[in-house]
Amino acid sequence: MSEIPYKIYLEESELPDKWYNVRADMKKKPAPILNPGTLKPVTVEELSGIFCEELAKQELDETTPYFEIPEEIKNFYKMYRPSPLVRAYCLEKKLDTPAHIYYKFEGNNTSGSHKLNSAIAQAYYAKQQGLKGVTTETGAGQWGTALSMACSYFDLDCQVYMVKVSYEQKPFRREVMRTYGAKVTPSPSMNTEVGRKINAEFPGTNGSLGCAISEAVEAAVAQDGYRYVLGSVLTQVLLHQSVIGLETKAALDKYGIKADTIIGCAGGGSNLGGLISPFAGEMLRGENQYDIIAVEPASCPSLTRGVYTYDFCDTGKVCPLAKMYTLGSGFMPSPNHAGGLRYHGMSSVVSELYDQGLIRATSVEQTEVFEAAETFARVEGILPAPESSHAIKVAIDEAMKCKETGEEKNIVFGLTGTGYFDMFAYEKFNNGEMSDYIPTDEELAKSISQIPKFDI
Amino acid sequence: MSEIPYKIYLEESELPDKWYNVRADMKKKPAPILNPGTLKPVTVEELSGIFCEELAKQELDETTPYFEIPEEIKNFYKMYRPSPLVRAYCLEKKLDTPAHIYYKFEGNNTSGSHKLNSAIAQAYYAKQQGLKGVTTETGAGQWGTALSMACSYFDLDCQVYMVKVSYEQKPFRREVMRTYGAKVTPSPSMNTEVGRKINAEFPGTNGSLGCAISEAVEAAVAQDGYRYVLGSVLTQVLLHQSVIGLETKAALDKYGIKADTIIGCAGGGSNLGGLISPFAGEMLRGENQYDIIAVEPASCPSLTRGVYTYDFCDTGKVCPLAKMYTLGSGFMPSPNHAGGLRYHGMSSVVSELYDQGLIRATSVEQTEVFEAAETFARVEGILPAPESSHAIKVAIDEAMKCKETGEEKNIVFGLTGTGYFDMFAYEKFNNGEMSDYIPTDEELAKSISQIPKFDI
Repeated sequence: MSEIPYKIYLEESELPDKWYNVRADMKKKPAPILNPGTLKPVTVEELSGIFCEELAKQELDETTPYFEIPEEIKNFYKMYRPSPLVRAYCLEKKLDTPAHIYYKFEGNNTSGSHKLNSAIAQAYYAKQQGLKGVTTETGAGQWGTALSMACSYFDLDCQVYMVKVSYEQKPFRREVMRTYGAKVTPSPSMNTEVGRKINAEFPGTNGSLGCAISEAVEAAVAQDGYRYVLGSVLTQVLLHQSVIGLETKAALDKYGIKADTIIGCAGGGSNLGGLISPFAGEMLRGENQYDIIAVEPASCPSLTRGVYTYDFCDTGKVCPLAKMYTLGSGFMPSPNHAGGLRYHGMSSVVSELYDQGLIRATSVEQTEVFEAAETFARVEGILPAPESSHAIKVAIDEAMKCKETGEEKNIVFGLTGTGYFDMFAYEKFNNGEMSDYIPTDEELAKSISQIPKFDI
Repeated sequence: MSEIPYKIYLEESELPDKWYNVRADMKKKPAPILNPGTLKPVTVEELSGIFCEELAKQELDETTPYFEIPEEIKNFYKMYRPSPLVRAYCLEKKLDTPAHIYYKFEGNNTSGSHKLNSAIAQAYYAKQQGLKGVTTETGAGQWGTALSMACSYFDLDCQVYMVKVSYEQKPFRREVMRTYGAKVTPSPSMNTEVGRKINAEFPGTNGSLGCAISEAVEAAVAQDGYRYVLGSVLTQVLLHQSVIGLETKAALDKYGIKADTIIGCAGGGSNLGGLISPFAGEMLRGENQYDIIAVEPASCPSLTRGVYTYDFCDTGKVCPLAKMYTLGSGFMPSPNHAGGLRYHGMSSVVSELYDQGLIRATSVEQTEVFEAAETFARVEGILPAPESSHAIKVAIDEAMKCKETGEEKNIVFGLTGTGYFDMFAYEKFNNGEMSDYIPTDEELAKSISQIPKFDI
């Protein structure tokens, strides 16, 4: 076998032709999403009022294992995919570990993260349906940036409701979106009924993701030829993100490498779900075993400290109900939490795989996450996003365990994006001003107790 | 021949083993750099007081055509090189041109630009010499970022004097450098004699590149085990940057593509000189013809409106004299100039090639540059640095000429970096607040008239 290069690039011809739907291989499927009014499983027709029809179908399809990637999406993917699988030789040397560490780098596109993989798919289906545009919300701006790029490529109008505090404090993110032609509105705005209401009730409010979602949904429904799109949590998003895992698997196979440990950061589950899909599929079919680790922030520990139950997907309570690991839709991470991964729940697919024991989960604190990020940046030369650095932290921990045991494990982790727009957080860390906060049992119990008991 | 992919990646084994020194193929060599005191050619011994010895040798070597790339530098290169040569299919389609457009993308590393190619080489030789660290200046921060990364890799101390106004207005750049472990000092500082003097004379000054250079040089000389390093203009930098051109040539050859037009932006000449070196070498040896275009900002037009004469390389007048196209070392681009490429002169190698007629030059205004950047970003998905966008603008112009004539020219340009840290400028453009300024003949004549008449 040839020596393993620093970067394993697949050829364009090795780009996956199909997305993989891990639900098809699950004997026990994730619980269906429910209409919050009727508490019955949502139909394609109902979903198609908010989402594009093709995406509504993908969302609800539990049995089709593979979905053909349309030619136009493949052509877009070719501009930045297959993305590199990097052997972290320098990190291994720094840690002096016998482990072999690999990372799948998804920050090699202007949007700077894996979010683009689904954004381009969602924009494509919107265009196919003859829509004029889409609406969405964004917090820190990774998803909004990716969607703006994708809409620009397909010449779709893109309306982004950006949480007001981010709009003001992250002007660079805002300007990237505008450069791609998106209309970026600070939320709450005066464009929507819900925005006007909140502005009247709380003058000068900073906004919240929950409010921005509600505005984006209202704007989509209010305009002819518009639909709402979302960058994580949904099962359609995991489907599109399976391209990460499929490429990772193909690159490892090319060099005859069998992964032992697979690590991904977990917020809504889009990256983790995409990365692990084909590996989890092999486990579900009894073909292989992997140690899969979901890493979440200790400040927002939905898998490690949440409950597995039906809950609202959004703070505004306008979206369908999903059964998932959740801290309650009212849960907000402490204000000192710097990175993303702030979602109160978790993708229903990831939740079910976790419940079935195919995934284990761990939580880490942000100071140790930034320490890992700094170590990684200094030797591997990539400045990682705080989100991605959760996976780095645990990859380093696992590699250090190998140092103790002498095991030559193959550790693979997802490096979801770059940290160029997170320098305020790095500054805090560099100045020694970063602190950690773990919610108390009482706080979590209070938030969880507010999840309604649905009569299902 | 196989179909040309979106991205032509070379294998790690195709990474160049040697840098190419274009001076070796020049019959008429660039004029030597002079000691400003004696007006005699600088010797290796004299240069070694400021620069590392090996770099001083490279700087003055006019005859060795190839320099072996040391193994440790190659290992670092492998983390982000060979960099992709991208076929701009989407841009071609957008322009509806028969031209084939290719760009060599050097922004695929955290430093975000080609500057890393030389930074790692300079850090390596400093480490080899047993130095403790290096000092440098940075304006916008691209060079300082690259050097911080390189020093972190070789565990060298890195002291960056950052122009005070950039230090305050570009905090993100500053924090990236600090994350890589660099000490970043706003200039003028109280660390150096020259800094204290300027602070006393002009309380509250914003600083200038000239002053930062002087501080960095003073700091290098004042500390045992330190040397000063520089990111452009010098011939050693062009040597290291030849890796860009060598890879470009190898990638084109791999698919049997003969470049017709080669375009690079030109500030101090580091990227342009590196990109064109092997192509210019073929022209010098009479093997091939290319149309090579240097693109400079209309606001800082050293090649198109400067004079070819000996001048100071720095505003502080501490460095050797070089014969080059120059606007005078006191020239400052108008404050409304947003991007880089602000250097008053031009690499002596590029200057001599231009004087010999191997290169032509053109200048463009910044508003049209940002228009080109936006067009490019929306279809190709990469947000380009303003500097790089000068080359994009002229590549688009050349492709549009092909549309008129029907020629299927192969146009290759250097995409030197990404624009993540230039969003203030993009914001100005997005808001329609960007303006152009071309210096008048009188202004340039005045600045040029202040170049001393050296008695050489």
